[in-house]
Amino acid sequence: MKQSGGTDAQKRHAGESAADAVSDGDVVGLGTGSTAAAAIRALGRRVDSGLDIRGIPTSYQSRQLAREVSIPLTTLEDETPDLAIDGADQIAGFELIKGGGAAHAREKLVAAAADRMLVVADETKLAETLDVAVPVEVLPDAVPVVDSALSALGGVPELRSAVRKDGPVVTDNGNLVIDCEFGAIRSPDELATDLASFPGVVEHGLFIDMADEIHVGTDSGVEVLCRDAR
Amino acid sequence: MKQSGGTDAQKRHAGESAADAVSDGDVVGLGTGSTAAAAIRALGRRVDSGLDIRGIPTSYQSRQLAREVSIPLTTLEDETPDLAIDGADQIAGFELIKGGGAAHAREKLVAAAADRMLVVADETKLAETLDVAVPVEVLPDAVPVVDSALSALGGVPELRSAVRKDGPVVTDNGNLVIDCEFGAIRSPDELATDLASFPGVVEHGLFIDMADEIHVGTDSGVEVLCRDAR
Repeated sequence: MKQSGGTDAQKRHAGESAADAVSDGDVVGLGTGSTAAAAIRALGRRVDSGLDIRGIPTSYQSRQLAREVSIPLTTLEDETPDLAIDGADQIAGFELIKGGGAAHAREKLVAAAADRMLVVADETKLAETLDVAVPVEVLPDAVPVVDSALSALGGVPELRSAVRKDGPVVTDNGNLVIDCEFGAIRSPDELATDLASFPGVVEHGLFIDMADEIHVGTDSGVEVLCRDAR
Repeated sequence: MKQSGGTDAQKRHAGESAADAVSDGDVVGLGTGSTAAAAIRALGRRVDSGLDIRGIPTSYQSRQLAREVSIPLTTLEDETPDLAIDGADQIAGFELIKGGGAAHAREKLVAAAADRMLVVADETKLAETLDVAVPVEVLPDAVPVVDSALSALGGVPELRSAVRKDGPVVTDNGNLVIDCEFGAIRSPDELATDLASFPGVVEHGLFIDMADEIHVGTDSGVEVLCRDAR
């Protein structure tokens, strides 16, 4: 699930750093969540100062925020993102777990379409090994079958309940979310392949081989981890 | 795309043969399409004669037909199917392409949940190598990205247009369908893994390692191919 351990300053430092990596003319995927929101606000300030970009939102939330801060919007039909900026619930190396905000299907779609993915995070998101629950978006009818399949794989699945709405969380795509604990995930790529193959699974929250840079906000500034420099 | 080369008699022979394989007390997944419909009608006749079963439909169409022929219905939440009976658009060995009717996401879900899958088909569906277009159900927003990914994989994707509705076919899950030609598919299992991993893909029409029996209707009767006997 989404962790919110970082401070506003850390998130702002991460968001500003990623926003600074955007160039004039870029098409930018706009992520979802509090740290991605910091990046969208930083981009909005650069647009106010004359930066010419178009944004492709990953969710209702990021679209609304982008409008608020006057970032012109476009779509995946019309343009291909040069880069995507998004947060993560947990990061180990360059592998991510996302989906605490239930927007991971579209987030992954936009990140996959982009030439580069910049992840923005505070230090509390970094881990040696991925071990938080993996959000799995499923077709509403598929819950019992996917539940069994996840259990057979050694996971502990739990249907995500909504707050301020009775019953389960419904995603922007009209599907449900199962959060599945696997303990320490030793082979995230194998787990990703397994999860993707389950009938009824629309998308899972493991992002493998997608992140190119991690912008980690600290109290005093930012540390940028680049994949090429691994 | 769905082929309808077989005759009604061939489809009826296949459907009756599969219906005969159902035992008292079974929970049966009810497939979609003209040959699966023949099986559902044959099951209805056995229910009239006292057979005690519950059906789990794979689509709006199969639910309506099951009601018409008085098969009691249940759900994946309440019961696990002992067997699933369904058609296929093409069959090579025990591997299938399904989805001409755009119901393949739920068809795969029900078949995966079932202990056994019985495929019903006429002879025109049998092939040496799978080579018809693979239906890929995608999130509506994902069409351009999945289109590019399919092309990069060597496929020729085409968004399925609706008839008696403007614009694209919309699935029972609210998604769209891309039919993708790959020519002769030499490694269906590898292609299935690739397709399942694409962001934005909800389900693809390759059914690998799922079919246990193929009931092939002929003019004079039926030929049953059993996986264990391969």
